[in-house]
Amino acid sequence: RRCGFPEVIFGEGKPAATIATIFDRLLAAQVRCLATRISEEKADLLRAHFASRKNPTARYNSLASTFRVDPHDAPPLERKGRVTVITAGTSDLAVADEARETLDWMGINVHTINDVGVAGPHRLPARLPEFVGSDAIVCVAGMEAALPSIVGGYVDCPVIGVPTSVGYGANFGGIAALLSMLNSCAANVTVVNINAGFKGGYLAGMIASKLHDARQRPQ
Amino acid sequence: RRCGFPEVIFGEGKPAATIATIFDRLLAAQVRCLATRISEEKADLLRAHFASRKNPTARYNSLASTFRVDPHDAPPLERKGRVTVITAGTSDLAVADEARETLDWMGINVHTINDVGVAGPHRLPARLPEFVGSDAIVCVAGMEAALPSIVGGYVDCPVIGVPTSVGYGANFGGIAALLSMLNSCAANVTVVNINAGFKGGYLAGMIASKLHDARQRPQ
Amino acid sequence: RRCGFPEVIFGEGKPAATIATIFDRLLAAQVRCLATRISEEKADLLRAHFASRKNPTARYNSLASTFRVDPHDAPPLERKGRVTVITAGTSDLAVADEARETLDWMGINVHTINDVGVAGPHRLPARLPEFVGSDAIVCVAGMEAALPSIVGGYVDCPVIGVPTSVGYGANFGGIAALLSMLNSCAANVTVVNINAGFKGGYLAGMIASKLHDARQRPQ
Amino acid sequence: RRCGFPEVIFGEGKPAATIATIFDRLLAAQVRCLATRISEEKADLLRAHFASRKNPTARYNSLASTFRVDPHDAPPLERKGRVTVITAGTSDLAVADEARETLDWMGINVHTINDVGVAGPHRLPARLPEFVGSDAIVCVAGMEAALPSIVGGYVDCPVIGVPTSVGYGANFGGIAALLSMLNSCAANVTVVNINAGFKGGYLAGMIASKLHDARQRPQ
Amino acid sequence: RRCGFPEVIFGEGKPAATIATIFDRLLAAQVRCLATRISEEKADLLRAHFASRKNPTARYNSLASTFRVDPHDAPPLERKGRVTVITAGTSDLAVADEARETLDWMGINVHTINDVGVAGPHRLPARLPEFVGSDAIVCVAGMEAALPSIVGGYVDCPVIGVPTSVGYGANFGGIAALLSMLNSCAANVTVVNINAGFKGGYLAGMIASKLHDARQRPQ
Amino acid sequence: RRCGFPEVIFGEGKPAATIATIFDRLLAAQVRCLATRISEEKADLLRAHFASRKNPTARYNSLASTFRVDPHDAPPLERKGRVTVITAGTSDLAVADEARETLDWMGINVHTINDVGVAGPHRLPARLPEFVGSDAIVCVAGMEAALPSIVGGYVDCPVIGVPTSVGYGANFGGIAALLSMLNSCAANVTVVNINAGFKGGYLAGMIASKLHDARQRPQ
Amino acid sequence: RRCGFPEVIFGEGKPAATIATIFDRLLAAQVRCLATRISEEKADLLRAHFASRKNPTARYNSLASTFRVDPHDAPPLERKGRVTVITAGTSDLAVADEARETLDWMGINVHTINDVGVAGPHRLPARLPEFVGSDAIVCVAGMEAALPSIVGGYVDCPVIGVPTSVGYGANFGGIAALLSMLNSCAANVTVVNINAGFKGGYLAGMIASKLHDARQRPQ
Amino acid sequence: RRCGFPEVIFGEGKPAATIATIFDRLLAAQVRCLATRISEEKADLLRAHFASRKNPTARYNSLASTFRVDPHDAPPLERKGRVTVITAGTSDLAVADEARETLDWMGINVHTINDVGVAGPHRLPARLPEFVGSDAIVCVAGMEAALPSIVGGYVDCPVIGVPTSVGYGANFGGIAALLSMLNSCAANVTVVNINAGFKGGYLAGMIASKLHDARQRPQ
Ligand SMILES: Nc1ncnc2c1ncn2[C@@H]1O[C@H](COP(=O)(O)O)[C@@H](O)[C@H]1O
Ligand SMILES: Nc1ncnc2c1ncn2[C@@H]1O[C@H](COP(=O)(O)O)[C@@H](O)[C@H]1O
Ligand SMILES: Nc1ncnc2c1ncn2[C@@H]1O[C@H](COP(=O)(O)O)[C@@H](O)[C@H]1O
Ligand SMILES: Nc1ncnc2c1ncn2[C@@H]1O[C@H](COP(=O)(O)O)[C@@H](O)[C@H]1O
Ligand SMILES: [Mg+2]
Ligand SMILES: [Mg+2]
Ligand SMILES: [Mg+2]
Ligand SMILES: [Mg+2]
Ligand SMILES: [Mg+2]
Ligand SMILES: [Mg+2]
Ligand SMILES: [Mg+2]
Ligand SMILES: [Mg+2]
Repeated sequence: RRCGFPEVIFGEGKPAATIATIFDRLLAAQVRCLATRISEEKADLLRAHFASRKNPTARYNSLASTFRVDPHDAPPLERKGRVTVITAGTSDLAVADEARETLDWMGINVHTINDVGVAGPHRLPARLPEFVGSDAIVCVAGMEAALPSIVGGYVDCPVIGVPTSVGYGANFGGIAALLSMLNSCAANVTVVNINAGFKGGYLAGMIASKLHDARQRPQ
Repeated sequence: RRCGFPEVIFGEGKPAATIATIFDRLLAAQVRCLATRISEEKADLLRAHFASRKNPTARYNSLASTFRVDPHDAPPLERKGRVTVITAGTSDLAVADEARETLDWMGINVHTINDVGVAGPHRLPARLPEFVGSDAIVCVAGMEAALPSIVGGYVDCPVIGVPTSVGYGANFGGIAALLSMLNSCAANVTVVNINAGFKGGYLAGMIASKLHDARQRPQ
Repeated sequence: RRCGFPEVIFGEGKPAATIATIFDRLLAAQVRCLATRISEEKADLLRAHFASRKNPTARYNSLASTFRVDPHDAPPLERKGRVTVITAGTSDLAVADEARETLDWMGINVHTINDVGVAGPHRLPARLPEFVGSDAIVCVAGMEAALPSIVGGYVDCPVIGVPTSVGYGANFGGIAALLSMLNSCAANVTVVNINAGFKGGYLAGMIASKLHDARQRPQ
Repeated sequence: RRCGFPEVIFGEGKPAATIATIFDRLLAAQVRCLATRISEEKADLLRAHFASRKNPTARYNSLASTFRVDPHDAPPLERKGRVTVITAGTSDLAVADEARETLDWMGINVHTINDVGVAGPHRLPARLPEFVGSDAIVCVAGMEAALPSIVGGYVDCPVIGVPTSVGYGANFGGIAALLSMLNSCAANVTVVNINAGFKGGYLAGMIASKLHDARQRPQ
Repeated sequence: RRCGFPEVIFGEGKPAATIATIFDRLLAAQVRCLATRISEEKADLLRAHFASRKNPTARYNSLASTFRVDPHDAPPLERKGRVTVITAGTSDLAVADEARETLDWMGINVHTINDVGVAGPHRLPARLPEFVGSDAIVCVAGMEAALPSIVGGYVDCPVIGVPTSVGYGANFGGIAALLSMLNSCAANVTVVNINAGFKGGYLAGMIASKLHDARQRPQ
Repeated sequence: RRCGFPEVIFGEGKPAATIATIFDRLLAAQVRCLATRISEEKADLLRAHFASRKNPTARYNSLASTFRVDPHDAPPLERKGRVTVITAGTSDLAVADEARETLDWMGINVHTINDVGVAGPHRLPARLPEFVGSDAIVCVAGMEAALPSIVGGYVDCPVIGVPTSVGYGANFGGIAALLSMLNSCAANVTVVNINAGFKGGYLAGMIASKLHDARQRPQ
Repeated sequence: RRCGFPEVIFGEGKPAATIATIFDRLLAAQVRCLATRISEEKADLLRAHFASRKNPTARYNSLASTFRVDPHDAPPLERKGRVTVITAGTSDLAVADEARETLDWMGINVHTINDVGVAGPHRLPARLPEFVGSDAIVCVAGMEAALPSIVGGYVDCPVIGVPTSVGYGANFGGIAALLSMLNSCAANVTVVNINAGFKGGYLAGMIASKLHDARQRPQ
Repeated sequence: RRCGFPEVIFGEGKPAATIATIFDRLLAAQVRCLATRISEEKADLLRAHFASRKNPTARYNSLASTFRVDPHDAPPLERKGRVTVITAGTSDLAVADEARETLDWMGINVHTINDVGVAGPHRLPARLPEFVGSDAIVCVAGMEAALPSIVGGYVDCPVIGVPTSVGYGANFGGIAALLSMLNSCAANVTVVNINAGFKGGYLAGMIASKLHDARQRPQ
């Protein structure tokens, strides 16, 4: 297990049969499984596969395009840490939900706050109590992607910006949002690839997990 | 006089002698003069020129790189309208001051608010009373240029975004700020060229001037 | 109501059911509604929805891809201000009509002039009487997008350039038109995003509306 | 002699001594010589060289950065054809003058029209008689570079657009002007490299020269 | 008739009915008609339209995507001038044929030479007699687009480069070919937009036509 | 104090006098000060300033271009956490040292490992014991910037990639390194702006600091 | 036969019938044939064609999208040289297999090593014995494309990098991988076009073939 | 010694003292030394250093910007293999000479052919006997960089294209040449970074060296 977490399958370009085979191997080793970028078609095939194996834990999230399946007798997952996923608009939800699913699979406590983009300047401050105190924040935004800079000004934890390709015209498939986040004047904002919900969630979860462990096992 | 205002000289690439000649012609026609993008060297030559002509109104603004000179006996300029120029950071001041000088020359009442960028999220709301109620706002910002979107959410007047080339690395000479403003989710934000303080001021001044006239001369 | 006008729905990426729900809420609050970027399929669903509610005001504009619906008993809208929408060619009409629908919904008097691009240099001057005197002009153009610069030279009001992605090859999805407008040598030209007919119309309407109000209520 | 005209030296990156040697060889072969992109420093060295050779025809054009020198006893050049060089603004003059010098050296009748850019829409039509009837037109423009499209609409001869790097911000060293010309909706506009005054002049001169010859030697 | 030739319809984005209407108007005025960028579907509709009008001259070229139709009783077109269209590879044929159709419609004598790209260095020299002596050459090439530079070195007439989007990877939809042609070291090479077969043909035809007229009507 | 740490001055574009004034104010408030992007010239002026104030703690790092100064009687800084700064080559040292200075100023234990880029594949594994177990890693690399991906594969902590503009040709001022890091296949790699040593250090320090506190104050 | 090998057909954009005709001609001349970029549809038509000609050697590789066919009675191909094809991940396999098929058709001994990208840093060193000693290496990688730099550090033969368009977001269709390889700090890494498996294989095969010949026929 | 050759120092950004120290260490180990990207200033310091050490082999090549120094008593270098370095124009000479110096230092027989670019189509074929039969060819070209494609068509050995930043306007610092070479239709052309004369020479030398060894030591 790399980085303290079982492998995640990047589903794009892999046939459902290949994914099922990898999952079977991981499940046999008692690993909880996650695959990202799974289309509806592949999900149907995977669902059929795990139905035939009588594994009732298989589940597809069509918003996040993720597929999850646990070993038959996996014990309930103990939750740890605290990450908030914040979106600028409803169109950013699919990417944000890939982050949320990743965090959930890592066993992190996740809270999500949607549609608090800068166009409504009173919306974000109104929800401060919900995200101040997070171990890390995943901030998902397209278009001008001003949100991470503003969130970064309110908190003293790492803010991981996930630019999305939401928008049209001069947003150039997410370049506008990516450049905006890279040039953020807030010192606690860092950036991952365009639409990389998985990576944003993974990094936030890694930070929260380590903080949780440090709190449990003091030096 | 184009667009209701006397011509403004774009000083870049024009020798001081050429600019002096154009100014002399305009002054003879009783026109108040403005030149932008004037270096210290050219300013010295222009100052000497107008000293020799005994015109005491010649003045250079080294921050804005603008040069102004009025006809000897120009009457005091009656002020009209109300425009606010807002900057994200102190590094945007040179571009903002080109906008302010342009508005001043147009006879518009200008107020400036500096260094209220998003890194300090409480700074802008604290100054709302100073800019709510403007006829138009010029918003000057570099780096991620989130400011116009936020200003746009607080007011019901046109916000003219002037992206600046302030920043480094992936700001690419102002492209990051330009794209950010073009993709603003605030519907009242429009954009001019990178570092185009003159254009931002001119457009805001044109709107304020027309509103002033409409108020004076009702239908 | 932000910016003095009721909210407009950006329809791209929102299911018809979601749009219908927002519309119902706005109509209950006596708000006239506009949604942009509505496909034929979504329009059919929305039409059925409002037919079942017996609201006869629901109407779809398939050129502009806009959907409008008013409260059952909305009083006739009093018209104010004057905006002209000018296109370079017939291929720019869809974007221009999004601007026109937005202005119409704002209650602004709109006049449109089509296909007066620079390829026919006598066409624009022949129609000067139709647009000189506008409160603001929306200028929609693709390809080399020379039109706003020329229109800007004839008038003394703000010209809002809307670059379109019309063209092929080195137009790069509207970048050529966007850069052309940003570099306009006319001081009264400002720019919005590629294909952003809504934003162009909204800004022009805001200026016209404020001028109308100033004329009615002199200081 | 390539393309029917003696070789032209591209001076950038070549030492003055190298250029002088090539010139000496060409002069010995009775060829009229032209070098482009010659700095003041190199021009001084070349002037000294030809002074020492007592060739009084050596001459430097510091605006165009061109250097010319003829064989001692070259007969007067008979003029032919008719090309007009048109600039949008005075900042385009250096590039335009490289085109004019090239045409002059080719023995073409050249007429230049300066500063008729689109910002002043009445300036170009006022000078129609000066350029209608040209064999070819070289149109030099920076910023939004709308001029070639408009010129192209008035004439029925080839218009060779030379984009210049004049401007700032989003003109990106001439890319805005280049894209604008490539996307021209006028069918008779073709384009050469940014700042390529030589190439623009050369192509126009080649067309004019062939037309002159065809008129002299009918089939 | 602009530029001495009847109007050509750019078919992309125009419904077949609109094109038919424009054609009917032009035919009534005894104008020979050409439309470019016509899909098979639109061609079927246009063919049916002109069949119903019993005009047997309507013809579609599915390689060039052009549609032609003449007035019923148009006299045979007298051919003039001489243009050669040269392609680098067979994949460039569609763009080249748009150029050839345009030249044919202009009444120019056209000769085409295919698949003589630089990969086979002996192929072009072997065909020199076929293109030396042309009034103008249209050179159509994708990928590295070296052909215009080489053709330009063999002839003393204008070479109009038409970059195509043929290729993959780092050709970026024709940018590689466009930049290659703009940077051609041959002084007689000029460039039009990517895939702009019409424009390449039109310019070459205009030059050939003027040369033909000059030969017929000497001064 | 933003984000739990005193303000850091971005020195680029600010006169030395302005920086001195801000420092004086912070020192009066007992804050340890750091300024980045300080040239040798500004450093001389700052050194003179603090010499005159008899503050012996003022010190300039000419490699990192940073300036530090502490309150006269600041207590020794207690060290906490553990961050490793790793560079690919010696040319990346200036950017890496800005990160190291930032971490030092935050009171973090920093270890640096230089010149372990991928060209020498045995160099990095040989030093594993030095960086495995870090709280966070700052990885500074130019050119192809492969280092963060490889480091990321060896550790289970966040790796913050800082792309540098080191290289030439197709590195485009750091774009190659930036894109390389954004596309890292290692899930624990996140990215800041090109040459943003400060930001890389600040984020790593924030993570290390929070981990240290969690270890000290268990739940 | 150019470059010592029979022509290879680039299948993209060529109808199956055209390809069949070229193959028939080559087969008649006793040439072993290869076509690249062949879709399933074209493969079906080609298979039918060669079935009707009773040539049992026709075979399609749907992973590599290549089609091979030999003369009926071609002697078994004697193998020579040694090339290793290495991929970073399983998504790079299609491009790698185009390289492998090209090498196989050239008669080169090929060995492939898959999925040894940098995310798993122990995977490549573990397989050193398989590729050290190759005549040349083809290294196929997408995303951050760090693999060629690392491979280059282990061997003393040419490494030909083939960037792939595998990835999403800021990989921009393979630009990230291309730039990464061009900026490789390993001196023995050279690059071909994005997804150019054929070219990578061809160059490696040419080097291996020449080395084999040199070993057989010593000076 | 990596790749079978002693290390080469990349001089850009390294102080002369650092380079001298590395050289001293290599010389002590009896290694022949090469440094690239050495300015005149650094060369003076290095020359003084080795004069003081009485090593008469130290030599600077100001065209190539390379510095060489051998151990005092190094035996004469036995020459092997055969590489040709070809340039398109004289402006490409500096980059080509970096390649030539690298090959010379590797002990390879080098021949150079200058100024045979495509503008003079007869120049390259006239010199075929000089480069046919090379083990590898380094082809250095700027502007449209058509040369490698043409050279590639004449030979059956690897052609390593080195794009240069020679040119102006739309060559964008060598991007035009780079893209041109990457899109070469000749299958034996591969590419290194812009201006990377060292890398081009190194790869060609590696191929030639291996071929020489194979010829000497047959299997
Ligand atoms: N949506 C995603 N975006 C980026 N990386 C991913 C994603 N999903 C999985 N991964 C990464 O890809 C690795 C698996 O890649 P693969 O072996 O191709 O399935 C995982 O360990 C993750 O690090
Ligand atoms: N076509 C459009 N282009 C850009 N912005 C739009 C468009 N239509 C609506 N909007 C803006 O989007 C806002 C609503 O966004 P949403 O809440 O996502 O529906 C409106 O208030 C407008 O400011
Ligand atoms: N997949 C490929 N990528 C790049 N070049 C190819 C490819 N397949 C074939 N070629 C080249 O294209 C040439 C044939 O092109 P064509 O004449 O268009 O079939 C061959 O000689 C090869 O050099
Ligand atoms: N001009 C150059 N361009 C690219 N790489 C070079 C150049 N000169 C030297 N190198 C490479 O840089 C390595 C040395 O880098 P460094 O350790 O920074 O001196 C050498 O082994 C070469 O691989
Ligand atoms: Mg929203
Ligand atoms: Mg600030
Ligand atoms: Mg039109
Ligand atoms: Mg002008
Ligand atoms: Mg071919
Ligand atoms: Mg190194
Ligand atoms: Mg993998
Ligand atoms: Mg040359």
